[in-house]
Amino acid sequence: MFSPNPVFIPGPTNIPEAIRKACDVPTLDHRSAAFGRLYRPAVAGVRRVLRMDEGEVFLFPSTGTGGWEAAVTNTLCPGDTVLAARFGMFSQRWIDLCQRHGLNVQVIEAPWGEGAPIGAIEGALRADIGGTIRAVLATHNETATGVRSDIAGLRAAMDRAGHGAMLFVDGVSSIASMPFDMAGWGVDIAVAGSQKGFMLPPGLAILGVSPKALAAMDSATLPRAFFDFRDMARACAAGGYPYTPAVGLIAGLSRSIEMLEDEGLDAVYARHYRLAEGVRRAVTAWGLRPCAATADLQSDTVTAVVVPEGANGSDLVKLAADKYGVAFGVGLGEVAGRVFRIGHLGMLTDVMVLSGLATAEMCMADLGWTIRLGSGVAAAQDYYRGSTGIVQQAAA
Amino acid sequence: MFSPNPVFIPGPTNIPEAIRKACDVPTLDHRSAAFGRLYRPAVAGVRRVLRMDEGEVFLFPSTGTGGWEAAVTNTLCPGDTVLAARFGMFSQRWIDLCQRHGLNVQVIEAPWGEGAPIGAIEGALRADIGGTIRAVLATHNETATGVRSDIAGLRAAMDRAGHGAMLFVDGVSSIASMPFDMAGWGVDIAVAGSQKGFMLPPGLAILGVSPKALAAMDSATLPRAFFDFRDMARACAAGGYPYTPAVGLIAGLSRSIEMLEDEGLDAVYARHYRLAEGVRRAVTAWGLRPCAATADLQSDTVTAVVVPEGANGSDLVKLAADKYGVAFGVGLGEVAGRVFRIGHLGMLTDVMVLSGLATAEMCMADLGWTIRLGSGVAAAQDYYRGSTGIVQQAAA
Amino acid sequence: MFSPNPVFIPGPTNIPEAIRKACDVPTLDHRSAAFGRLYRPAVAGVRRVLRMDEGEVFLFPSTGTGGWEAAVTNTLCPGDTVLAARFGMFSQRWIDLCQRHGLNVQVIEAPWGEGAPIGAIEGALRADIGGTIRAVLATHNETATGVRSDIAGLRAAMDRAGHGAMLFVDGVSSIASMPFDMAGWGVDIAVAGSQKGFMLPPGLAILGVSPKALAAMDSATLPRAFFDFRDMARACAAGGYPYTPAVGLIAGLSRSIEMLEDEGLDAVYARHYRLAEGVRRAVTAWGLRPCAATADLQSDTVTAVVVPEGANGSDLVKLAADKYGVAFGVGLGEVAGRVFRIGHLGMLTDVMVLSGLATAEMCMADLGWTIRLGSGVAAAQDYYRGSTGIVQQAAA
Amino acid sequence: MFSPNPVFIPGPTNIPEAIRKACDVPTLDHRSAAFGRLYRPAVAGVRRVLRMDEGEVFLFPSTGTGGWEAAVTNTLCPGDTVLAARFGMFSQRWIDLCQRHGLNVQVIEAPWGEGAPIGAIEGALRADIGGTIRAVLATHNETATGVRSDIAGLRAAMDRAGHGAMLFVDGVSSIASMPFDMAGWGVDIAVAGSQKGFMLPPGLAILGVSPKALAAMDSATLPRAFFDFRDMARACAAGGYPYTPAVGLIAGLSRSIEMLEDEGLDAVYARHYRLAEGVRRAVTAWGLRPCAATADLQSDTVTAVVVPEGANGSDLVKLAADKYGVAFGVGLGEVAGRVFRIGHLGMLTDVMVLSGLATAEMCMADLGWTIRLGSGVAAAQDYYRGSTGIVQQAAA
Repeated sequence: MFSPNPVFIPGPTNIPEAIRKACDVPTLDHRSAAFGRLYRPAVAGVRRVLRMDEGEVFLFPSTGTGGWEAAVTNTLCPGDTVLAARFGMFSQRWIDLCQRHGLNVQVIEAPWGEGAPIGAIEGALRADIGGTIRAVLATHNETATGVRSDIAGLRAAMDRAGHGAMLFVDGVSSIASMPFDMAGWGVDIAVAGSQKGFMLPPGLAILGVSPKALAAMDSATLPRAFFDFRDMARACAAGGYPYTPAVGLIAGLSRSIEMLEDEGLDAVYARHYRLAEGVRRAVTAWGLRPCAATADLQSDTVTAVVVPEGANGSDLVKLAADKYGVAFGVGLGEVAGRVFRIGHLGMLTDVMVLSGLATAEMCMADLGWTIRLGSGVAAAQDYYRGSTGIVQQAAA
Repeated sequence: MFSPNPVFIPGPTNIPEAIRKACDVPTLDHRSAAFGRLYRPAVAGVRRVLRMDEGEVFLFPSTGTGGWEAAVTNTLCPGDTVLAARFGMFSQRWIDLCQRHGLNVQVIEAPWGEGAPIGAIEGALRADIGGTIRAVLATHNETATGVRSDIAGLRAAMDRAGHGAMLFVDGVSSIASMPFDMAGWGVDIAVAGSQKGFMLPPGLAILGVSPKALAAMDSATLPRAFFDFRDMARACAAGGYPYTPAVGLIAGLSRSIEMLEDEGLDAVYARHYRLAEGVRRAVTAWGLRPCAATADLQSDTVTAVVVPEGANGSDLVKLAADKYGVAFGVGLGEVAGRVFRIGHLGMLTDVMVLSGLATAEMCMADLGWTIRLGSGVAAAQDYYRGSTGIVQQAAA
Repeated sequence: MFSPNPVFIPGPTNIPEAIRKACDVPTLDHRSAAFGRLYRPAVAGVRRVLRMDEGEVFLFPSTGTGGWEAAVTNTLCPGDTVLAARFGMFSQRWIDLCQRHGLNVQVIEAPWGEGAPIGAIEGALRADIGGTIRAVLATHNETATGVRSDIAGLRAAMDRAGHGAMLFVDGVSSIASMPFDMAGWGVDIAVAGSQKGFMLPPGLAILGVSPKALAAMDSATLPRAFFDFRDMARACAAGGYPYTPAVGLIAGLSRSIEMLEDEGLDAVYARHYRLAEGVRRAVTAWGLRPCAATADLQSDTVTAVVVPEGANGSDLVKLAADKYGVAFGVGLGEVAGRVFRIGHLGMLTDVMVLSGLATAEMCMADLGWTIRLGSGVAAAQDYYRGSTGIVQQAAA
Repeated sequence: MFSPNPVFIPGPTNIPEAIRKACDVPTLDHRSAAFGRLYRPAVAGVRRVLRMDEGEVFLFPSTGTGGWEAAVTNTLCPGDTVLAARFGMFSQRWIDLCQRHGLNVQVIEAPWGEGAPIGAIEGALRADIGGTIRAVLATHNETATGVRSDIAGLRAAMDRAGHGAMLFVDGVSSIASMPFDMAGWGVDIAVAGSQKGFMLPPGLAILGVSPKALAAMDSATLPRAFFDFRDMARACAAGGYPYTPAVGLIAGLSRSIEMLEDEGLDAVYARHYRLAEGVRRAVTAWGLRPCAATADLQSDTVTAVVVPEGANGSDLVKLAADKYGVAFGVGLGEVAGRVFRIGHLGMLTDVMVLSGLATAEMCMADLGWTIRLGSGVAAAQDYYRGSTGIVQQAAA
């Protein structure tokens, strides 16, 4: 059931040995002092990874979706307006979640393959003279299209518009793999998940929450209980937890951050760039192109490869799984069939990436796509062997 | 940080080797067919453990609290009335959760140490001529007081009253350790958690949902997204999941059920009775008494021991942790300080229980309580050695 | 310290998840009946893998070297003559071991890159009119040169010569990866190690011993204690062990054999042929050649690649380890520097092999060898994608 | 097959979580520099535990028995005389091993239950005017009888006798649990095993070898190959190993020593005394006595309990295993049936010991021995709760 081959999905990612072991813990009494000794360093580490200088970190036994729900239900009231751009499956899902909670979502449509449309967002904020927009929702890395949005630019636009909305950022597939600067970018809530850059198993929603967002907590009237920040803040301040915590994942999170910091966060980001760049060169060598419209939009954690006219990316994904035991990602939503996705985040080396590229080539040949075997591999090899000055090895 | 001694908290429980290993899995593509091969047997097994003959099982990456939230938000509308008795911390918390979601909770107070007051509930239902009560909430095993309620009796009362309310049961600390009969008792939603009788790490809310509760899903207007049954049902029917599943816990759940069924569910229940009975005899030998008001109310998964006048149960719990590395449970809510709790569920043997009883005795002596060392141990030894005709050993 | 990349050494091999877990056991009393329940299926499985129809299996907490020592010390007397060919490092080491034990080793020299010289052995046996040769020592798969000898042919030669010597075969790097037929080939002692085809960690010498070799046990006067077959046979017959057994490795061995048999031994052998053939095609595409003199000598578990004139194979191995975190094997003994070795045995997939080939190519380019990046990978891809009718995936 | 109860055999011992994980490693190329990074700290740690100030440490993938064999075959010649006392099964086995290797063993018989008879040994050495005795063999802790010999006293006797024989000490069941001082006691070879005080799985013989013993290496003519110190010394000096090392156990050994030193070796020894003393008080409370003849001989790692007249200790061991899933040790050799043994070494807490004592009591009652349930437990509880000033908790 479990293949020894690496996975190349944009999360959950390959899990390092050390994290596997850190997560696999015997039972611990979460009402004892031992829990605090486990919990506090994890939280402190998340603060460093997110680059928070104030505010709180919350860890929910949940997923990124739960993290979104926590973000909005703890800060907003039924009927509140939020502003969001739709340019991929995950931005779409967040919009849907807000609508289910009775929020008024002002949606800005953008092409799939582009990022958050900063100009349009700025325009919408400027037009919001009454200040009804309570929060701007942004997907930092749209996993469906392999597009990274410019959150620093978005913050600048919000500042230019002089609008006081909160800024909520979905960093599920970017945080801990690509630079993130919660304080510098003025992010009010950042949402991450355990199973991406943190290289953990799924099961933990990780949130950084600014004082401004915390201040909204008491007036927020959207109903919530499991995801209530207030319970979590109160319990954690007392060294506890409002219900049974995911002790293993919290232990693993500390270990993850230790690994990330041993490698160096900048080195981690550089490694992801390097791995991604090799993949992009392979894609070019194949005569194909990433879904991301321009180079500056290209994500360093996932590349959505636009398949040749008439081909179906999902066929490649299925074949890779069935014939070679390798997992790639299918296209989702508007780009279903039109792309296949190569995840290159988390614990991954250039050597592992090369096996993924080689597999993709075999599948393309099997499917009758125009491909010269070894061509993409060679382009990536050439790049990888010349770029190892950049720290390259994920710890294991 | 992790003691080699067993824990004696009423969950999370000691985790068997085989389950530790089953949960510790490499990354699997949850969009591939492999996920279905993992998921389906887990769900089928839960059906057998809950004794469901129809309806659906849902597994949320969450906890029992999340399970409660899922139960009410998927079946009810703001302002709906539910009927619930308050007789311990967990029944109290569920009431609070309903109130936060804007439900009208008709609360029946009962003494802590007693179970769900069936007569009073029947009376309330009979008095509800207009049929405004949409659901009756019952805590099968009140973990705070070590009290088991009579769900079969509650169902009979509901039938006698001829009331059509749904019956939601919190079985978090009973299911898979004490007999449960969802079909026989006409339970509409049963909520379990991974970290109790299933002997798994925390992180999974396990729900059995009857057709009647499923039918309420579409008209329910309480907002929900992460916990939405509709998304879960649709995704799982297609072999997928609405977001990233807790693959390791799902794999572990299958293994857990395999272990439970290898031992035999009836043997599992008999073992829990036997372990609990040894603890109760020790308590009597100590000159103390369980919090549960009468013998028929005594839980087989946790015993709350009423401490001597003037003593504080939390002192014993703290001392056991600090001096002996053993975890017991403190009293919660109304019985804070007045009891300490011995959990005896999940993977546990008589031999392990004896070490817990011996530790409790040392603590009592250390605290100056009146205790003859070895007295409770001897009472339990005497019972255990005479009762091994009952299948006794938890698999490891 | 541990790279997430696969290793490509000819043992120890990459270890499947399931075997990692099977080996990682809590403490078990090896004097209890539980040990027999663990031990017996492992031994029975080894019998099937070796294709024994009679005789005994012995498992020593040791390595292949210890297995050789056990083979000779339990069957021979000081001064006894054994016949052995030297054509690689491991045949050489076995000869040296015999000499240390005071045996008279009649050595037949053969070129490194060739196999056991059957004609010369037959000649030596025919010339041994007095029957002084007690045993013929043969290295089935010479790991240093990637050469497989023809044991069936050797047996036929021994039969033709009408010589009654015992036949001892070092199958450390062949057994469980390439066809082996102890009964059919009339092998008297076969020596295997845990860390090759059985995919286990190192630490277990695995021996199959024929009745003829067992019969030599009582008259053998070479001193031995730890490796004494007599103690082992007596203890194991009684369900015990003469000292503390490597319980984890024995548990893992059962699991290994279960995995091998689930895949099917013939399928396992076919997979190794297929993986090896891809490597050989890559070598040819690189313009290089295997050390094995002729195609029929080529091992399916390891390929020793002869490096270009003026190049040093050990440079490649060092660079691969230091720069890419990938382990290949250096040349040993006579072929030190002149080859580097690619191990392709145990838990391995075509996808993993491709990453090894890609790494080797990068190293060659880095070292200034004449190489077109991607060329070997393409040759292997072409072969692999066309040959998946052969069962291919190692279980994990 | 694996019970969740602790084992109470005198090795293999209960294995801490952290060591289980440290041993469970992926494959590492033992010819790479990474191996040295793993090996060197393990060896350095062993030096500290043994209190060596010079000489070498050797780690063989084997057991204590192999360690004995290595000790004698690397330092002695056929026909050499060694002096050894026989006072238990393990001293007996070492004598037997020497005899199999053609050594002339001058045996001093001593009652089982006493230690090495220092006076008789001194006498024998004084009588050996010609200096034919090459080595004195001493069993520090005779696991069969629970007797600790006075090695410091033995060294003083050797010095008084002015005899130059080497001193070889079997410390398999003492080292890392009871004080050991290789330099201070002038020990020439100390033999330990991984599965006792080091709390590792079985599979590693650990030897400390003095310069004097190393000097004997070249003139020693007993045949050896697998256990040859020369190969091991040469290979390890070059950062390698003469064959495939037990990488996992070596990694675990480093972790073990880290744990021992985190607790503090003196604290480890004090803990073992404390655990043992509780057991001894229980034995007295039962009206029984240890096999060790006098208090100063009582081992802190294992207590052999002399059973009542007419009773058979092996019955208790069998019953404990079959009925309660708890492992004790049977009597061996001369004391077979007459004792049962309680191991109390390695990772163990007072709480765990209490469960063992409680189990022994249940078995005694089941077998009809005269016993008051809880009596031994109470005696141990009383001692344990009053002695926690001594550092008590094994790390997990």
